Parts: sequence; C-alpha cells; structure tokens
Amino acid sequence: MFGCLVAGRLVQAVPQQVAEDKFVFDLPDYENINHVVVFMLGTIPFPEGMGGSVYFCYPDQSGMAVWQLLGFVTNEKPSAIFKISGLKSGKGSQHPFGAMNLPQTPTVAQIGISVELLENLAQQTPVASAAVSSVDSFTEFTQKMLDNFYNFASSFAVTQAQMTPNPSEAFIPANVVLKW
Amino acid sequence: MFGCLVAGRLVQAVPQQVAEDKFVFDLPDYENINHVVVFMLGTIPFPEGMGGSVYFCYPDQSGMAVWQLLGFVTNEKPSAIFKISGLKSGKGSQHPFGAMNLPQTPTVAQIGISVELLENLAQQTPVASAAVSSVDSFTEFTQKMLDNFYNFASSFAVTQAQMTPNPSEAFIPANVVLKW
Repeated sequence: MFGCLVAGRLVQAVPQQVAEDKFVFDLPDYENINHVVVFMLGTIPFPEGMGGSVYFCYPDQSGMAVWQLLGFVTNEKPSAIFKISGLKSGKGSQHPFGAMNLPQTPTVAQIGISVELLENLAQQTPVASAAVSSVDSFTEFTQKMLDNFYNFASSFAVTQAQMTPNPSEAFIPANVVLKW
Repeated sequence: MFGCLVAGRLVQAVPQQVAEDKFVFDLPDYENINHVVVFMLGTIPFPEGMGGSVYFCYPDQSGMAVWQLLGFVTNEKPSAIFKISGLKSGKGSQHPFGAMNLPQTPTVAQIGISVELLENLAQQTPVASAAVSSVDSFTEFTQKMLDNFYNFASSFAVTQAQMTPNPSEAFIPANVVLKW
C-alpha cells in the first residue's frame, strides 16, 4: 500500500505492518538523511473518509523513541516529500504508536504511517520544518477539510421560518462558518 | 527499471521507452509541479560502468522542447529529488534526445532518462537550481569520479627507475592528480 524513499537510496515498498492500521519503515543511518518521500503505491486506496498521518521516529540520547508528525498522505494527495534533517533536536508530538515496542537501534530511525479518519488528521499539526512540497498540500488539505465542514454544517442549515420554537438552542449564521 | 514521482501525485513506474537507452515520463499540468523524484525500482541495475542522466523537458512559448539536465541516478545513488519549479525560464542544455519527436502538448512536460557511460555523466553539469538533496549526491558523485580517475590514472603510474628514456613524453606527478 505504501512506499518510502530516502533521497539517494533505493526505494522501499514493503513496510512492516505493526498493527492493522499502522505501518513502519526502517531508516538505517538516519543521521545522514535529508529528505524522505512517502507515497501510496497506487494499488490499494485508503478506505472512504480515511487517510494516513506520517510520523518520523528517532531515538533520543537515552534511547527513547521520539515521534514527530511530518504530515499526511491521502487518496487526493498520495505522496509527499519531507525534510527530516532539521528535526533531530525537536520535541516529540502526540502520536498513536505509543503502546508499540518497536526496536530502537541508535542509528536506525523509522517512518510510521497511521491510518486514521480524515477528520482526525485535520486536527493534527505537523512540525513546520518538515514541509517541503507538502506546504501547498497541507494548505490545500486544510482548506478541503474546512470546505467539508461547511458542507457538513450547512446540510443542517434551516431558515427562521423552518425553526421550531426552542429558545435554548443556539444557531450559528452560515456565513460565519463560511468566513471562518 | 525507473520510477518517477511528482510530489503530491501518484507514483509512475512505467516510463515510455523511446530508444534502447532512453526513457521518458510524462508530467501533465507541469506548471503546478514543484518537486520530482526519480528513482530506480531496484529490479534491474545499470550495466557495469553505466548510469542515467535525468533531464526535464518542457515546451517553450513557441512550443519547442527545452531540455535541462537535472542530475543523475546511478547504482550507487539510485534516487534523487529535483526542484523543477524554478526552471521554466532557464536556458536549455545539450541533451541526447535531439532526434526524437516527442509529442509537445502545452501543459505536458517530460522527465527523460538517458543511460550513458559514467565517464560521460561526470562531464555534464546539471542546472544548479534543480538540486535538492541531490547536492550531496552530486558532490559525492563527482568525488567518486575523481577517485575513479585517480585509480585509473595511477594504474599507469611508473617510478623514474621504470621509465624508458623518451624525452618527448610528459609525466604528471601522481600527487598533482590527487590534489586536483
């Protein structure tokens, strides 16, 4: 389903599947890696309404795994380039790989892909320095999520004539959502 | 043998083979492309002593094909990321696709890969603005070619005791080659 490519090295097309919805690629000698490409192979799309969050995991000085959110791949944006060379001193982010006991070798990092609902992905903020060409993708992705939310919210829209009297229920004018 | 990936889009793994040693990928809607990844699939390596020069080809205002050398892939560096978004106003470079009548559609560009001797690749200079992570690769590649040249040249090295008298023949001290 996924491929991973470290610039300058051979492509990897067989991730390790560590859970039903979680996939991991090993990145040996990660301290000499600048850019990583994560892409869908084009064989199996994400299920409707799902996408993948892409994490970089590396061992900190004490050998503990630090996970950082790089960005996303979706059926609409099935590939992304990430810059990982600036990440090695950054803080970890919340991640869904917590319970997994992945082997931590000092010179091996990982790319983890977690398949999640698109709504969940839209609430996650990747580390800014990871964005290469995914900057545009991410902006577009967020825009698309907002559009989806507007479509979703406006499907419940009523005019005042249609309202049943209920003084305790709050209504948000549709154009407020649109502006936001 | 080769794959091509436009950041944000699906991977292409089947190039059009336009000559025995030349391969082409189409890049539709190329004006919205920032980065292109070119990589070997890992199935078939280059023949011994050969590598691939990677070109970007786009139609100029009059519809003529402009070819620009992006860089190289070799068995030692089987993948590279190139930035093509800054290239569209640049000058064309010498290229080996001259005689080929590739279709020129205004919005479609191409990635061309030409399989050539490593010695030939070492004499070609890619456009500087195309380099992303291939900067290191290219420097290393050049270094490797120089090493190869030193190994090649020093295999002919003789000491003064071994020289047959021939005043018209010039000798280059080995450490001059090494310093260069």
